[in-house]
Amino acid sequence: DEFLKVFSLNSNPKLAEEIADHIGVELGKSSVKRFSDGEVQINIEESVRGCDVYVVQSTSNPVNEHLMELLIMIDALKRASARTINVVSPYYGYARQDRKARSREPITAKLVADIIEKAGADRLITLDFHAAQIQGFFDIPIDHLFGMPILSKYFEEKQLKDVVVVSPDHGGVTRARQLADRLKAPIAIIDKRRPEPNVAEVMNIVGEVEGKTAILIDDIIDTAGTITLAAEAMLDSGAKEVYACCTHPVLSGPANDRIEKSPIKELIVTNTIPLTDQITSSKIKQLSVGELIAESIKRVHEHRSISTLFS
Amino acid sequence: DEFLKVFSLNSNPKLAEEIADHIGVELGKSSVKRFSDGEVQINIEESVRGCDVYVVQSTSNPVNEHLMELLIMIDALKRASARTINVVSPYYGYARQDRKARSREPITAKLVADIIEKAGADRLITLDFHAAQIQGFFDIPIDHLFGMPILSKYFEEKQLKDVVVVSPDHGGVTRARQLADRLKAPIAIIDKRRPEPNVAEVMNIVGEVEGKTAILIDDIIDTAGTITLAAEAMLDSGAKEVYACCTHPVLSGPANDRIEKSPIKELIVTNTIPLTDQITSSKIKQLSVGELIAESIKRVHEHRSISTLFS
Ligand SMILES: Nc1ncnc2c1ncn2[C@@H]1O[C@H](COP(=O)(O)O)[C@@H](O)[C@H]1O
Ligand SMILES: Nc1ncnc2c1ncn2[C@@H]1O[C@H](COP(=O)(O)O)[C@@H](O)[C@H]1O
Repeated sequence: DEFLKVFSLNSNPKLAEEIADHIGVELGKSSVKRFSDGEVQINIEESVRGCDVYVVQSTSNPVNEHLMELLIMIDALKRASARTINVVSPYYGYARQDRKARSREPITAKLVADIIEKAGADRLITLDFHAAQIQGFFDIPIDHLFGMPILSKYFEEKQLKDVVVVSPDHGGVTRARQLADRLKAPIAIIDKRRPEPNVAEVMNIVGEVEGKTAILIDDIIDTAGTITLAAEAMLDSGAKEVYACCTHPVLSGPANDRIEKSPIKELIVTNTIPLTDQITSSKIKQLSVGELIAESIKRVHEHRSISTLFS
Repeated sequence: DEFLKVFSLNSNPKLAEEIADHIGVELGKSSVKRFSDGEVQINIEESVRGCDVYVVQSTSNPVNEHLMELLIMIDALKRASARTINVVSPYYGYARQDRKARSREPITAKLVADIIEKAGADRLITLDFHAAQIQGFFDIPIDHLFGMPILSKYFEEKQLKDVVVVSPDHGGVTRARQLADRLKAPIAIIDKRRPEPNVAEVMNIVGEVEGKTAILIDDIIDTAGTITLAAEAMLDSGAKEVYACCTHPVLSGPANDRIEKSPIKELIVTNTIPLTDQITSSKIKQLSVGELIAESIKRVHEHRSISTLFS
């Protein structure tokens, strides 16, 4: 379909390529560079007039650069008469700033939603919002996809025995329950207190892990403090071995080191964020969300094409 | 006045200090840091409820970082019940992307205006927009200040003889005319063609410069290609000596080197953008816009206080 175009910005070029392949189109031609003073310079090198355009860009680190690239691309597409502008942001950054936890805090996740809409986006396709409430920050339709089926399939195929699925904190229990259902396993919860951001403190374990294969699950692994302390707590409580998984591998700062030194046997992640060169641990296995996203785009576009026929 | 607060973000901490001094207030307490993954973390450490808040932040290099800091600060102030949020952006970045010069280009100067307003700004105080039309990109009131009086005062006090004020391109003739009026001098224009961005080509000179002291004036000096080639063209055409001045010293990439090696005797700039450590040329003299901005804030605030009395 010549009216479906997929463009990539700088966050996930390989994933964008994969998505385009699955759909059966070439990536749209564009360049995203910097002027000498650091300002973003975008050139769209083919017509988008009347097209349904999908722009692949996670707002991952460097988040402010990636976000501005996205906004400027949306502005350019809008002015170039694209019919619809569909933002494919597999990882939605600033999602942890989604509420006023203290006085005078910003709610940056809402600000980002507002400015993406203001720029001219018509739809957002994303995976595993840090909180489902973030959907309500938007007035445009959102296709909220889940990494869970991809992660659970991996573990199903591994045919691990005596599994317990473990949530590293209270906020993630629903997620753990979902994976446990798929693996027909029980759950456990780590009862934790976090004294300040990026520092995690593991407390006691609710549930039975002794003699079992523990699979820790979270949505985001950032500095890996939480997950690696959780892994140690598992072994301390008699678990036989520990796996971990998450959708979004932010993996900043000490993450690679911590994972490498931890008792985690394998860390399964998706490619909503590509792994940087600093991430060298052979324990980390990355699964692709390319097909998942491509199928979602195809579904959206099918409806668009049908509604065009009858309009 | 306890209801007037000035906050600084990371672009111009010294200028913000100076502005607060001139007004006679302490800078508001806040911190702007980064989380481990590069996301902006802002803490406002004193109440702003009911206050008229002035946030000092140029969208200078690194422009995307500075812009996001500004947007997040506006969001936090809004949610903290500030009465008005006044953005003091001495340098307004992305101003050169103010029109579609080619097909499918973004108009980023408009996008930035939109998102600053969307975040919740009530007013903008700025100096020398690259194009006066950018005022029309905003729906909020703008105090548009000019560096010209500060630059011209410097040259008046120098009492240079036989001056000609020179515009390095067609777009800057009005600006050159204004400085020339103040210095009671004639103008000249450099007739130039620019083959691509950040590359400048000097052509012939319209007007008389032989035997004169040329003062080149521009609004922005970025890579300094235009201005240094213009300076050489002046000497080639028989000018005795060459000064240069501008409001906004972007000075990226090769700028410092080019200025140092050029025939420019002195380059007079303002502090709408602070000079980085890479800018070492002793030819560059920086004049402060602190008092100018402080006076503007005082005028705005006086009206606010009066209207409060009668409401
Ligand atoms: N990029 C970030 N890195 C670390 N902590 C963050 C980040 N963004 C927000 N936070 C903090 O994380 C907490 C929310 O995380 P959570 O409880 O997992 O939803 C809040 O206290 C935020 O201030
Ligand atoms: N940050 C920048 N550095 C260099 N050139 C730019 C920048 N932003 C925009 N431009 C280009 O500068 C031209 C406009 O500059 P001007 O003619 O001085 O208004 C347009 O062709 C823009 O694409």
